[in-house]
Amino acid sequence: MKSTVVLPGGKVYQAGPVIKQVIITPIAIVDPPLLNAAGLHAPYALRTIVELVTEDHISGISEIPGNRSIDEALEESRDLLIGKDVFELNAIRQVLEGHFGKESAAARGVSPWDQRKLVHIFSAIEVACLDIIGKVTGRPVVDLLGGKLRERVPFSAYLFYKHKGAGGTLAFHTDPAAEGWAAARQAEALDPAGIVAQAKAMCAAFGFRSIKLKGGVFEPRQEVDAIIALREAFGPDVPLRIDPNALWKVETAIKYGWEMEPILEYLEDPVRGQENMAQVRKALKTPLATNMCTTSFEDIPTSIALGSEDIILSDHHFWGGLRASITLAGICQTFGRGLSMHSNSHLGISLAAMVHLGAALPQLPYALDTHYPWQSDEVIIGGRFQFEEGSVAVPQEPGLGVELDRTALADLHQNYLACGLTKRDDETEMQKVHPGWTFQAVRW
Amino acid sequence: MKSTVVLPGGKVYQAGPVIKQVIITPIAIVDPPLLNAAGLHAPYALRTIVELVTEDHISGISEIPGNRSIDEALEESRDLLIGKDVFELNAIRQVLEGHFGKESAAARGVSPWDQRKLVHIFSAIEVACLDIIGKVTGRPVVDLLGGKLRERVPFSAYLFYKHKGAGGTLAFHTDPAAEGWAAARQAEALDPAGIVAQAKAMCAAFGFRSIKLKGGVFEPRQEVDAIIALREAFGPDVPLRIDPNALWKVETAIKYGWEMEPILEYLEDPVRGQENMAQVRKALKTPLATNMCTTSFEDIPTSIALGSEDIILSDHHFWGGLRASITLAGICQTFGRGLSMHSNSHLGISLAAMVHLGAALPQLPYALDTHYPWQSDEVIIGGRFQFEEGSVAVPQEPGLGVELDRTALADLHQNYLACGLTKRDDETEMQKVHPGWTFQAVRW
Repeated sequence: MKSTVVLPGGKVYQAGPVIKQVIITPIAIVDPPLLNAAGLHAPYALRTIVELVTEDHISGISEIPGNRSIDEALEESRDLLIGKDVFELNAIRQVLEGHFGKESAAARGVSPWDQRKLVHIFSAIEVACLDIIGKVTGRPVVDLLGGKLRERVPFSAYLFYKHKGAGGTLAFHTDPAAEGWAAARQAEALDPAGIVAQAKAMCAAFGFRSIKLKGGVFEPRQEVDAIIALREAFGPDVPLRIDPNALWKVETAIKYGWEMEPILEYLEDPVRGQENMAQVRKALKTPLATNMCTTSFEDIPTSIALGSEDIILSDHHFWGGLRASITLAGICQTFGRGLSMHSNSHLGISLAAMVHLGAALPQLPYALDTHYPWQSDEVIIGGRFQFEEGSVAVPQEPGLGVELDRTALADLHQNYLACGLTKRDDETEMQKVHPGWTFQAVRW
Repeated sequence: MKSTVVLPGGKVYQAGPVIKQVIITPIAIVDPPLLNAAGLHAPYALRTIVELVTEDHISGISEIPGNRSIDEALEESRDLLIGKDVFELNAIRQVLEGHFGKESAAARGVSPWDQRKLVHIFSAIEVACLDIIGKVTGRPVVDLLGGKLRERVPFSAYLFYKHKGAGGTLAFHTDPAAEGWAAARQAEALDPAGIVAQAKAMCAAFGFRSIKLKGGVFEPRQEVDAIIALREAFGPDVPLRIDPNALWKVETAIKYGWEMEPILEYLEDPVRGQENMAQVRKALKTPLATNMCTTSFEDIPTSIALGSEDIILSDHHFWGGLRASITLAGICQTFGRGLSMHSNSHLGISLAAMVHLGAALPQLPYALDTHYPWQSDEVIIGGRFQFEEGSVAVPQEPGLGVELDRTALADLHQNYLACGLTKRDDETEMQKVHPGWTFQAVRW
């Protein structure tokens, strides 16, 4: 039942919808053996699905990167959320900050993924609340962010060095391109030729028009050669990016940055830390992008003072939600920074949120990152999102426009219980293949 | 009628509400003969009331500073707005920018008020759209900004040097304090004693707990003496501010800034331009506030680089609306700036918008400016807003929570037609009293 407010004069105003239930479901989704600076993707990536249910049985959902400590913090938040009106997003944020305390930017950690709790939790709650607000107002989430500026949101191909195998299989092969990607997704890709083959299959299946290579795996010469091979294979009309995940030294970044200057759209996190990024930026004309050196509002002032990057790769999961991402977009626009989006292995709920946000951004000069082609699972009714010419149509239904497939959710939760993983740990996984391998914050 | 979208599978989604009518009504409201850096308030202040009506007859309203060129630009915008969904705020903004072109920060001008067009127009349209969105979703506007963080929004007493007279009379005198203010509002105030008397009457009637003096009228010694007199009259618990509207030289600002250091809450726009503000800021411990040197997103990067102020006095009318003000709040929070609000002579529609915004701001360390006590007219049903202990309760009704009084609107429009004013021109008004007086951008 909605709560009511009686106004002076006797008019009754319907308050609510009020949160009655907070359902936190950790899931494990099949993930291919993708190589990266931190090691190797485990056979499962962890995500957490949050469902808020209101007193009048309206459900809102969200998806965030999962690990046990975030799940525990979400459990801890439950009592703070129950009874809150879903429109009270500012107050919910303050209550969570009050409970967990301010979280420093340093809590992000040195891994390629973000290890903070509060921003992830608030993102989970905010997106689920926006889903409910959209449903009760009859509007898609993009309309709660000022409305869409485009009908489709473009994504980029996201290439990985990888071992053979992909864990799950792709269920829906309806055309030769999809078949081709299903095969390429299983294939080994450890050299330029393997990367080009992967790119061709992925672009054929999804229609991507830009390409990103996750680097930081092999010594830079080999990875730069892969970028050169991609350029030869795709020509100058397909923008290329490489992301060594901050593993290069400044001199390495400048040397190879110069070499790739004619062919890169942007260079992502070549080095670690804002000061080093600023040094590289001064030496190169190629724009620098980051999701590792400037990753929170707290990082912005030094980013601006130092000039550490040209493009912030936002991620609503770790910038504290969609509305905070709109504020970040305003900051980027104010300071002449570009904005695009980072991703981790994810399913369709996160993708839907990214698409709603991407559709509302005043400027969207770069195709967004997504790991989605690498996933085979899905947790939403209707199965996996379709890409057309590399882009996803903005859902038009009220809210996020996606609904939980409860059977799939139960299965993926069983995966979580069975797999035994409690956090992302690519180093341990790598050591199973290369005993003694250790993560290094700066390698070459 | 709402437009409909047919989704794949045949589900029908209600779009709209769609703007069918744009009603632009310039009004003239009685304004007392208030002195300021630019001269003297004319007997009427101009405002423009904008009403958007949807295809299903829902009305949304807003109020902005009026002048003929803004009214003409609004008329010019009409065809761009008709047929737009009120949720499409991002697209409306882009269409207006596309039509009018980017507006430079310099278009603000040197007067104490902001002379830009596009930001005012967009503010008018956005607030009226949010009013409609609030009505169709059954939520107060504050809930469209993330929800309220406080039940009441505090304002400051706003003192003016003035000649005798106040034009209109205050209709509702229900207690001795209101009677006292009605008398003080008519009285002359040209020296410290007059200012103290004005402050006492205003604070008694409205309960304000902070006091601002509009300076830039007399030579600094006299105005600083008024601040000292206010301190003696009100003691250390009532924060004091003075605003010379950028008329002081740097050395003047530093000299008197030092003298007032023990008693000022903040010093508002003592000097002109970001560089000069930054110089004064380095010399003083007292925080500097501005609504003249940093007044647009374009001004922010140099503000940050120079350190030109501590507090931005936002104004949704010239920062481009309520949502842009939320972005500005995010910028201020990110860079450790304070945020408060500026005002011009205004009625209850602007006040309602300010209160909704003020209630949603994460931080509200300073009582906001308002000219409202100086006005005697009103254009909303139910008459003038009530202040309690200097603050205004956040309206709980859907939308802004205020409705047009169409009889009052017609009367105030007649005032506009009769008064012959087409823009604010305090210099001409001043010359009627002091022949030969001219505005000087820097005076002392």
